[in-house]
Amino acid sequence: MSYPFQRPLGAAPRPDGGVEFRVWAPKAESVSVLGQDLQPVGYGVWEAVLEAEPGDDYVFVLDGRRHADPMSRDQPKGLRGPSRVVDPGTFEWTDSGWDGVPLRELVLYELHVGTFTPEGTFEAVIPHIEPLRELGVTAIELMPVSEFPGVRGWGYDGVYLRAPHYAYGGPDGLRRLVDAAHGVGMGVVLDLVLNHVGASGVRTMKAFGPYFTDRYDTDWGKAINYDDADSEGVREWALQGAAGLVREYHLDGLRLDAVHAIMDTSPRHLLVELADRVHAERPSALVIAESNRNDPRTIRPESEGGLEQDAQWADDFHHAVHTLLTGESEGYYGDFGGVEDLARAFERPFVYDGRWSDERRRRVGAPGGDRPPEQFVVCAQNHDQVGNRAFGDRLPRRVLPLAAFCTLLSPFTPLLFMGEEYGEEAPFQFFTDHVDKRIARATREGRRKEFAAFAAFRGEEVPDPQAVETFERSKLTRREDRRIAALYRDLLALRPRLPDVEPEIESDESARWLRVRRGPFELAMNFGSRRREVPVAGSEVVLATHEASVGDGHVALPARAGAVVR
Amino acid sequence: MSYPFQRPLGAAPRPDGGVEFRVWAPKAESVSVLGQDLQPVGYGVWEAVLEAEPGDDYVFVLDGRRHADPMSRDQPKGLRGPSRVVDPGTFEWTDSGWDGVPLRELVLYELHVGTFTPEGTFEAVIPHIEPLRELGVTAIELMPVSEFPGVRGWGYDGVYLRAPHYAYGGPDGLRRLVDAAHGVGMGVVLDLVLNHVGASGVRTMKAFGPYFTDRYDTDWGKAINYDDADSEGVREWALQGAAGLVREYHLDGLRLDAVHAIMDTSPRHLLVELADRVHAERPSALVIAESNRNDPRTIRPESEGGLEQDAQWADDFHHAVHTLLTGESEGYYGDFGGVEDLARAFERPFVYDGRWSDERRRRVGAPGGDRPPEQFVVCAQNHDQVGNRAFGDRLPRRVLPLAAFCTLLSPFTPLLFMGEEYGEEAPFQFFTDHVDKRIARATREGRRKEFAAFAAFRGEEVPDPQAVETFERSKLTRREDRRIAALYRDLLALRPRLPDVEPEIESDESARWLRVRRGPFELAMNFGSRRREVPVAGSEVVLATHEASVGDGHVALPARAGAVVR
Repeated sequence: MSYPFQRPLGAAPRPDGGVEFRVWAPKAESVSVLGQDLQPVGYGVWEAVLEAEPGDDYVFVLDGRRHADPMSRDQPKGLRGPSRVVDPGTFEWTDSGWDGVPLRELVLYELHVGTFTPEGTFEAVIPHIEPLRELGVTAIELMPVSEFPGVRGWGYDGVYLRAPHYAYGGPDGLRRLVDAAHGVGMGVVLDLVLNHVGASGVRTMKAFGPYFTDRYDTDWGKAINYDDADSEGVREWALQGAAGLVREYHLDGLRLDAVHAIMDTSPRHLLVELADRVHAERPSALVIAESNRNDPRTIRPESEGGLEQDAQWADDFHHAVHTLLTGESEGYYGDFGGVEDLARAFERPFVYDGRWSDERRRRVGAPGGDRPPEQFVVCAQNHDQVGNRAFGDRLPRRVLPLAAFCTLLSPFTPLLFMGEEYGEEAPFQFFTDHVDKRIARATREGRRKEFAAFAAFRGEEVPDPQAVETFERSKLTRREDRRIAALYRDLLALRPRLPDVEPEIESDESARWLRVRRGPFELAMNFGSRRREVPVAGSEVVLATHEASVGDGHVALPARAGAVVR
Repeated sequence: MSYPFQRPLGAAPRPDGGVEFRVWAPKAESVSVLGQDLQPVGYGVWEAVLEAEPGDDYVFVLDGRRHADPMSRDQPKGLRGPSRVVDPGTFEWTDSGWDGVPLRELVLYELHVGTFTPEGTFEAVIPHIEPLRELGVTAIELMPVSEFPGVRGWGYDGVYLRAPHYAYGGPDGLRRLVDAAHGVGMGVVLDLVLNHVGASGVRTMKAFGPYFTDRYDTDWGKAINYDDADSEGVREWALQGAAGLVREYHLDGLRLDAVHAIMDTSPRHLLVELADRVHAERPSALVIAESNRNDPRTIRPESEGGLEQDAQWADDFHHAVHTLLTGESEGYYGDFGGVEDLARAFERPFVYDGRWSDERRRRVGAPGGDRPPEQFVVCAQNHDQVGNRAFGDRLPRRVLPLAAFCTLLSPFTPLLFMGEEYGEEAPFQFFTDHVDKRIARATREGRRKEFAAFAAFRGEEVPDPQAVETFERSKLTRREDRRIAALYRDLLALRPRLPDVEPEIESDESARWLRVRRGPFELAMNFGSRRREVPVAGSEVVLATHEASVGDGHVALPARAGAVVR
């Protein structure tokens, strides 16, 4: 019996006609599609070549029950509809000269397709790409587009990994967006969730096989079964899903959601195999992990026991900036708040690199000094840090300049959250469109409970995630703060001029200033609420977030301001 | 607040009088001992220097409830009694010239103190050590001695890591045994269980702190909390326990039970820290892991992402030998049975090194070819493979010679199970002495259920683990099979003469023979049930398990026989 797992799962049109159907369903006693039986070929895999063609809709029938294909390339009627056969080879790509974005040049721009434009489609994103490229963004990062429940949602409860959301414009919509982006020199990174599937998909997935395990509990419930009995088909679902997306959509990278919840004790961790497969498809494609472990193994090579990710999110940098500028101290913000924390974060962005965390009540992280700074992704805002607040409010315009100053002039890979580049004031709230009433109710209640105290304090109801108004309210208004827009332009223009040397960092906790020397440039920052003088050696202000005057060995900065001195 | 975790936990007599008490109890509101209060010093640690002296019995009183010390060095009245203050510095050691056993010379002999002699004590082991050393054993490996319930038991349900079982002779008994062993050139390795505590200890441990986590499920229930909130004190319990035993008992190594059930996602795995601490105490001490993962990372250095263990058990070798010789195919034996499997195992003992396992329904393991052979521990029998059979029966004398031949002439580190060196026929059954009636009943029922089918087939009751007769029946009779005893002597004498070169292996599945060339020596083995000729180049029989005649390019071997030809 040959080992069938590495053959393509799903529906693959053949060049000579017909469609090859293949599905992993180790517990089924019979599987059919389009009225014809699939044959078991061992290890729980079923396959057949059948009369069919691209555009045909199909469902798998497992022991008499109908289910869409877990490896569906298209769900033209959404989550509860049939799958559609797609030929990934017919799109006319025009990006033949394109070769990706080197990590060193990466400036990410996270956007949510549904709220980025009034139309909320892939197509509608296209006209905005060139201006972003001119601003200095080198890759847009799309929040998850894998088919998720209903019409609107953040996308983290997707089910069909490989099927771009129908309401955004489906497979061809995404292809046109990527092709257009490449045409103006912009990369496209896609957020992919492999640590759980949306609650609406659990029953379907279970019908196919043991996609979940009782051995590990995560923040999203039972972990996905990547290492126990019958995990092979689950791994292939994830690996073929990830590699197939990169191949078929010419993606420049994947952002993998919450990899700390991908539990895998196999000798080769799923993420190592994933990085391998993705790099085999497109050597320039980047695999970027979101992880809360502060563990540099995530971005080390396999030979050093690492997970082979090209980069990883480093939220500590955000928390250090955010707490300094807002004074907030709830939840994990309680572990931050000192200028000293941000000073550490400028060195390597794991503020917790083995230190005790009062919030997590254990030591967290390990030093990442052996890894180059561009392997760490930092931000002043992102969908989580904005959207997971009770009311989804962004950083106020009053503090945004210094936050952007820190982030964009850091030696790390910066990520902008859509709209921050001009001081957007629309909130980004949590919205869903659950088709399952029970899940809709649970989501609404969960949100209400989580933020009850805060809502009471503010005297307002927590926005209802299921309400269409919550979604509408989260759309960009594109009402621009011109000073902020100009600042972002200047910061992004200066960024590539900062030399690639280890920064020298000095700070004064009580005077609330921080100074980072990057070669001939000194980044002076005042986090206090009063005007301060920050000692500098230079005499020329290259860039400043606010009025700044230099002389006599110091630069005078207003509250929450930064200046680059030379 | 300084970080108190690395100070010694437990009761430590001070040179200038008084005893330093220290305990981690993060949820307690008050802690006292000997009628005096301990002071909280941060991170859940409590401490005080009190009037007391070695020999004093004590309990910690947490919020009014009395508990023995999780870091107890002595439980003179057993599991439910008080702890006793021990001065680890007063024993008069006579082993100053002793420097451990190099891994390359290690020949392990696993023994269970309670059944090794009629007395069942540490003391009673002593007279048997010198003959074992003369036989060629270089280290005895004691099954766990950490204080466990009642008087008799295998020891894997121990609770007080650091307290040598009182019924075996307590701390001084163990020290005398180790000292005597070193006196005749024998090392001592101790089996230590860090993946769970005995059910009888769960309530006590919980009273002190969150020793268990809901995040991971293991074969022994909830995993020990080595990586979640409040795991720091749990880690110190394990690390100080392990390192303290090595230091205070001059141990030459630890055998760590079932490390695959030690779940730890921290940047530095508990086992890496443990190896570090143990090696810091005694550079020559070996840390040997039992793991079912077939993952060479276990024995790789930290710089390669490894767990820094000096060696690991490789049960596949056992299974390959056992199935060939017995024809058994139940449970995990179903994954083995071919001569080809043993041929692979002679190369590196992970037969499953990335192959699909029908039994586990996934791929298992990874190749370990980068690790030297002595890092793998193999055996023909051990406490599990014998004792976890329904009736605890050993390999029959009819097949033992060839099993010993394979194991002792393999390039790996061999482990003998007490009594096999002379063909002991007493079973080694599963016995317990649970003091908690509920646990006793559950253990008895569990065993009965597990082996119901087999017991019915054999028409006998499964031995009652709680019955004293089950324990008595498992004691060595020392009734010797002289041919087997002579064979073990010859095999162990030949073993060091086999050169350290990669073996060349050839086999014939249908003819059931296997030939392993180790330099000038050819190990010829016939696993068939009929006489066979095995092709060899040599012309002299150096050693044979049975009558063997060589000539004309082959050696003729009876059924289940082996010969070394030169």
